[in-house]
Amino acid sequence: MAPPAAIEVEAVTDTTGVTLPNPLAAPLKSNEIYGRRRKTDKKQWGVAAPSNSAHFRHGSCDHKPKAKRWDNYLSHEATIRKGNSLKEAAKYLATPGIISLGGGLPSSEYFPFEELSVKVPSAGHFSEAETKDSGVVLTAGKHDLAEEKSIFDIATAFNYGQGSGAAQLVRWVTEHTELVHDPPYQDWRCTLSIGSTSALDMSFRLLSRPGDVVLSEEYTFSAAVETALPLGLRVVGVPIDTEGLLPDEMDSILTNWDVNARGCRKPHLLYTVPTGQNPTGATQSAERRAAIYRVCQKHNVIIIEDEPYYFLQMNPYTGPDAPAVPPPTSHADFLHRLVPSYLSMDVDGRVMRLDSFSKVISPGSRVGWVTASEQLVERYQKHADVSTQGPAGPSQLILFKLLDEHWGHAGYLDWLIHIRMEYTRRRDVILAACETHLPKSIVSWKPPSAGMFHWLKIEFKKHPEYPAKDIETLEDQIFMRNIEHGALLMKGSWFYADGNEKHDTLFFRATYAAAPADRIDEAIKRFGEAIREEFGLVGKE
Amino acid sequence: MAPPAAIEVEAVTDTTGVTLPNPLAAPLKSNEIYGRRRKTDKKQWGVAAPSNSAHFRHGSCDHKPKAKRWDNYLSHEATIRKGNSLKEAAKYLATPGIISLGGGLPSSEYFPFEELSVKVPSAGHFSEAETKDSGVVLTAGKHDLAEEKSIFDIATAFNYGQGSGAAQLVRWVTEHTELVHDPPYQDWRCTLSIGSTSALDMSFRLLSRPGDVVLSEEYTFSAAVETALPLGLRVVGVPIDTEGLLPDEMDSILTNWDVNARGCRKPHLLYTVPTGQNPTGATQSAERRAAIYRVCQKHNVIIIEDEPYYFLQMNPYTGPDAPAVPPPTSHADFLHRLVPSYLSMDVDGRVMRLDSFSKVISPGSRVGWVTASEQLVERYQKHADVSTQGPAGPSQLILFKLLDEHWGHAGYLDWLIHIRMEYTRRRDVILAACETHLPKSIVSWKPPSAGMFHWLKIEFKKHPEYPAKDIETLEDQIFMRNIEHGALLMKGSWFYADGNEKHDTLFFRATYAAAPADRIDEAIKRFGEAIREEFGLVGKE
Repeated sequence: MAPPAAIEVEAVTDTTGVTLPNPLAAPLKSNEIYGRRRKTDKKQWGVAAPSNSAHFRHGSCDHKPKAKRWDNYLSHEATIRKGNSLKEAAKYLATPGIISLGGGLPSSEYFPFEELSVKVPSAGHFSEAETKDSGVVLTAGKHDLAEEKSIFDIATAFNYGQGSGAAQLVRWVTEHTELVHDPPYQDWRCTLSIGSTSALDMSFRLLSRPGDVVLSEEYTFSAAVETALPLGLRVVGVPIDTEGLLPDEMDSILTNWDVNARGCRKPHLLYTVPTGQNPTGATQSAERRAAIYRVCQKHNVIIIEDEPYYFLQMNPYTGPDAPAVPPPTSHADFLHRLVPSYLSMDVDGRVMRLDSFSKVISPGSRVGWVTASEQLVERYQKHADVSTQGPAGPSQLILFKLLDEHWGHAGYLDWLIHIRMEYTRRRDVILAACETHLPKSIVSWKPPSAGMFHWLKIEFKKHPEYPAKDIETLEDQIFMRNIEHGALLMKGSWFYADGNEKHDTLFFRATYAAAPADRIDEAIKRFGEAIREEFGLVGKE
Repeated sequence: MAPPAAIEVEAVTDTTGVTLPNPLAAPLKSNEIYGRRRKTDKKQWGVAAPSNSAHFRHGSCDHKPKAKRWDNYLSHEATIRKGNSLKEAAKYLATPGIISLGGGLPSSEYFPFEELSVKVPSAGHFSEAETKDSGVVLTAGKHDLAEEKSIFDIATAFNYGQGSGAAQLVRWVTEHTELVHDPPYQDWRCTLSIGSTSALDMSFRLLSRPGDVVLSEEYTFSAAVETALPLGLRVVGVPIDTEGLLPDEMDSILTNWDVNARGCRKPHLLYTVPTGQNPTGATQSAERRAAIYRVCQKHNVIIIEDEPYYFLQMNPYTGPDAPAVPPPTSHADFLHRLVPSYLSMDVDGRVMRLDSFSKVISPGSRVGWVTASEQLVERYQKHADVSTQGPAGPSQLILFKLLDEHWGHAGYLDWLIHIRMEYTRRRDVILAACETHLPKSIVSWKPPSAGMFHWLKIEFKKHPEYPAKDIETLEDQIFMRNIEHGALLMKGSWFYADGNEKHDTLFFRATYAAAPADRIDEAIKRFGEAIREEFGLVGKE
């Protein structure tokens, strides 16, 4: 493999006005990552070999503070879970000359797969058409590891693995995390997840007990609520503005928490999607994040930072007639334009960050990763060992071939820039359609700067049937009118953090991620017609 | 694709002496399965399309009884879990001409995969060497579904899916289940799992509450115990003989259950590995299963039938000098030689059967399936939707290409016969080694008829230091002596169902699944030396 191209990184000036750890403060080139990779301990690439992300970091962490301990927040389940007794045997496997009739692993002789290949884009030629014409075929053989052709192969990836995932891919996500976030505490670790849906379920089971309240944006990812409720948790919504969650409101909820009135202990978990939040599309600024982090410090709250859309940050919207902002000029420029993550400012080790390949590679891979303190990651892995196990081997192998052996870190950043520009283009399509087709007296919005969602506010009090009909009835009426016109947008009420709370706002959510440009325009046009009919504007404008 | 070869099935005579529903009573040919597949509803193959295994069954179930309801056994979590509110929107997607800006699914345009290929054996030429030389390359394109080249492709498999798994593979496992087990009740369903480790975790979370006791073999799969304990469950071991769990002992435990003395309600869950049990290698006979099923009916117990080794049933062992039993002569002969499953005798819908591809295709696929009553499967799927989701797309796509499009049901049965004969050969190697190298006065065993494990009983009371040293100390001493001699076998005590109970037996577990024949022989030889040293037999025989 040729080494990937250098990432040009220069020292950058903090323009946010707040003091945040800067992931680019120490220049790091992606080819340096490869140059600085430690001498390979071949055992870690073997079948079901243990891996530890601490072995894959490059920067020294010795000067950084250690993470706080979270013993008081661990669930009963997480506290009493023990390791696998059979792993006691594993330490003897290193005995020279030993023959093991111990582990019940099937022989790869009986895996009916000799080769696995994927055709993927070359770095810089990312479109579907280019991939079809000039894509590269990456092939994993069955015994590439034994034959020293690669450090990962079918015999390894298709056998049992550890709950942490394979060291080959753990190394890659650890390097990527250090490159992008450089967490400012000593004992951070990465572990693979089978996607953030599972990682959130496991995080709740790790850090809560029935009766607890989780804080979140007042409109939030509905599946997160549906994950929480069966565990006996409640979700309490924190008021938001167009930048997302309001720190003062959160502080006020926590400061005034009345254990008796609320019937449960003070919340110690914040679930937030800081970037391109689902459903509101809101992105918290760096200042907003710093303020929320301070509130979490004050009340000792753990932050579950769910970030599927982090790399769907787009170029700023300049309006329908202004010239577009040019793409990032370098990897450094690209990384510098990203809003800093909670992980990057986490001096306490209070962030459990959930990353996912779902929105930037493919959801069906079912591969993501969790970054948190060693204590939490160790408990998470123990749970994975007896539930999800690590991600599926074919997924891990495909991602390793693509990300590590083919693109490298630099090529992956190129891909992410490609995705950034594609989503910018799509977002601009829906904004232009809204400008053209929607009545501004009724529908308003803020251009999203990240994610997949456009959040449309409806002045429901201007509806001719208001207040005779309540907000839910009007929302349903508009939803159905829109269906009649041949367009489907999501009801805002489906995203209430707490369905029992009264709400005084009405929104619809539209995604620009899936449909082609002309269909997006047509759907928004139909939505405009439906709104006009509902609000009695037909022929009046 | 050429249709797969017919499975010759004939009516078979019940030789077990007990009346069991016979999966081969109604002749079923695997090419008939394809001939009888229903007219394709194309929508079910689409991105994240719902699937229902009931649509994929061939035999009429109308005359069969319906499953019992298990409302009283469902956990609080399972009872209160609701469906995804966003799915309300899905029903409008069928509106003609509708444009959806609803679901937040990424466009497949941004999946960097144009083709996925695997090289696999042709049916009948299954060895690694043959696959290398004459294997067939199966290729899935990105848009094969839209281009009508296949019903499954990258654009579908690599996008989000349902917790049930993709209809394409649900169909295949449903047909396979009907062919092999033909459950004798009406409303049985299959749903994909991400492997039986997760399926067991989810089954416990579905059917138990903290404080409950689960019954199991007194020596059991240690990971099952480690899954149960953190959930607040206890595992109580039922005494076993060489055929596994003893029905009278189980009946006695349940009949005499003293709620006050035990501190919890009477058990309603049996966790069992009926075939090639881990660690004992025991296989319950058809009569034994029927008797245990009757005990479960009497006490209204749900059976979690964990069957990773079902198709690792081997030819009978004829001893070192007798001629080997010939391989099955036909698919019908092969299926008839299999011991009937609990699922095949489950007139009540009280069996939750966990199947897995781990031991017969590859563990790293992380694909298995659950067969149970509609009620239980529906709750399982709802949980999967907000935790594991379905299996990884690449795994599902690879298995579909191999099992459905390439081998077909008949080719897969050929593969299973191949695996049967390979494990028979391996089992015979370890038995020959034991005959040659182990002192019979100290070590005894029963030839395993299924699975991966050989279970060696040690007459620890003949140890010169007994009773001065207790059983655990002697076990550890033998274990370490064996390590000194360069062989690793597993301690039986690692598999206690209940570590707090006193045990009066000492075993070691050896697997013949992984090492080559000469290494198995050498390891058993070393074990024999260690035993001789420990028991003071050196130079005495």
